[in-house]
Amino acid sequence: MNTNVLRNLSYGVYVISTLDGDRATGCVANSVMQITSSPVTVALSMNHDNFTNGCIRKTGRFAVSILSVDSDPSLIGTFGFQSGKDVDKFASVPYERKEGLPVIPDSCGYMVFKVVGETETSSHTIFLGELIDGDVFGSAEAMTYAYYHKVVKGKSPKNAPTYIPEEETPAAETRTVWKCTVCGYEYDGEIPFEELPEDYKCPICGQPKSVFSKTEK
Amino acid sequence: MNTNVLRNLSYGVYVISTLDGDRATGCVANSVMQITSSPVTVALSMNHDNFTNGCIRKTGRFAVSILSVDSDPSLIGTFGFQSGKDVDKFASVPYERKEGLPVIPDSCGYMVFKVVGETETSSHTIFLGELIDGDVFGSAEAMTYAYYHKVVKGKSPKNAPTYIPEEETPAAETRTVWKCTVCGYEYDGEIPFEELPEDYKCPICGQPKSVFSKTEK
Repeated sequence: MNTNVLRNLSYGVYVISTLDGDRATGCVANSVMQITSSPVTVALSMNHDNFTNGCIRKTGRFAVSILSVDSDPSLIGTFGFQSGKDVDKFASVPYERKEGLPVIPDSCGYMVFKVVGETETSSHTIFLGELIDGDVFGSAEAMTYAYYHKVVKGKSPKNAPTYIPEEETPAAETRTVWKCTVCGYEYDGEIPFEELPEDYKCPICGQPKSVFSKTEK
Repeated sequence: MNTNVLRNLSYGVYVISTLDGDRATGCVANSVMQITSSPVTVALSMNHDNFTNGCIRKTGRFAVSILSVDSDPSLIGTFGFQSGKDVDKFASVPYERKEGLPVIPDSCGYMVFKVVGETETSSHTIFLGELIDGDVFGSAEAMTYAYYHKVVKGKSPKNAPTYIPEEETPAAETRTVWKCTVCGYEYDGEIPFEELPEDYKCPICGQPKSVFSKTEK
C-alpha cells in the first residue's frame, strides 16, 4: 500500500472562521466540500485539537473564506501555524462581519453556515453546515492545495524580489537553500539570506529569521 | 446571497467504483476528502439516486481512481453521463482488480476503502471509508474540477486536431459553436463540424453527432 496516492486528492485552501465569545478567530483548512444543493450544505472536517473546533460548537456557525491565487500568502501563516487560543489572529488581518462572523475580503469569496449536523471520528469532527450567506469577491482563481505547495512555497511574497521557479536551476548543481523550519517556506530572493535585515520574517508563517536553517538541495 | 461562490470550492475528478454483485460498476464524483490520517479515512458524498450508492451499501467497499490531466476525457462521459443500472460502464474501459474492486490504470492512482460509517442528508449519503489499499500510477498531475471545466471542455481529445484556447479568439467577434447538449462539450476541431463523419461521437460523453446544437458565442 502506497499512501502517497492521498496527495493526489484535490483541495482548496480556506480560512475557517467563527467566534470565541465576541472575538473573531479561525484557522486554515482544506477539507470543505459541498454535500447537497437544496438546501446548500457543506461538510467541513476539523481536528478535535483545533481551538476553532470548540468555538464552532459553541457558536453553532462558521464562515469559509476561499483563498485565491492573489491572496496574501501570509494569511496561511497567520491562520495556519499558530493557535487562536494564544493569538488574536484577526488583529492584523482586514476583515468584514457577515451574519456576525468574520470573513476575509482578500479572498475569492466567503460563505457563512449554520451547523446542522456533526459526525465524530477518532481525530476529527465533520461539521455539516447549511449556507445562510455568501458572496464572490473579485475574479481571481481559487488557490488549490497543490498550487500552495508548488507555487507559493517557492515564491517570494508579492512585494519581494522576483520568483525563480526551481526548474530554472540546472539539475546537476546543488544549491544552498534557507528554509523556514516552521512552515517549510524556501527563501528565494535576490538578496543573500544572510544579508536580510534582522527583523525579516517568513512571508508565509511570520516566524523570525532565526527559525530558518540552511540546507543543500 | 450569491451562491456562485460555491463554484470557487476546489475538487478533484474521481471515478468511484464498486461491485453490483460480481459486475464492476461506478460513477464520477468530485466530493472526496480525507478526514483522518490514522487510520486513513475519507468522506465520500454520493447522491441517493445514484445506482453506485446502493451498490456501495451492499458491497461495503468502494474504490477511488483519481483522474489526471492525462486521463482520457471520455472516462468522464462513460462514468458520468449514464447510469450503471442500464449500462456496463466497464465493458469498454481497461481496468484492474484491487482487493476485488475495479480500478482504472489511466489515472494518477487508486485507493480502496471499506465503509466504516454513513451519514444521511436529504439528498446524499456521506460514506466514511477506511483505506485498505492504494497506489500511485505515473506522475501526471491530478485533474481538478476547475481544469475539467476550463480546459477539457474546450479541448479536442488526444488524437484530434489541436486545441485552440478560447482567449485566442478576438473578443469582439461572435463565433458559431457546436455544443453537446448532453455534457456541454464544445467542438473546437479544425474540420468544420458539419463535415465530420456521421459516426462522430462526443469525446466527453460518447453521444452521437445528432445531439450537438449550433449556438452563437
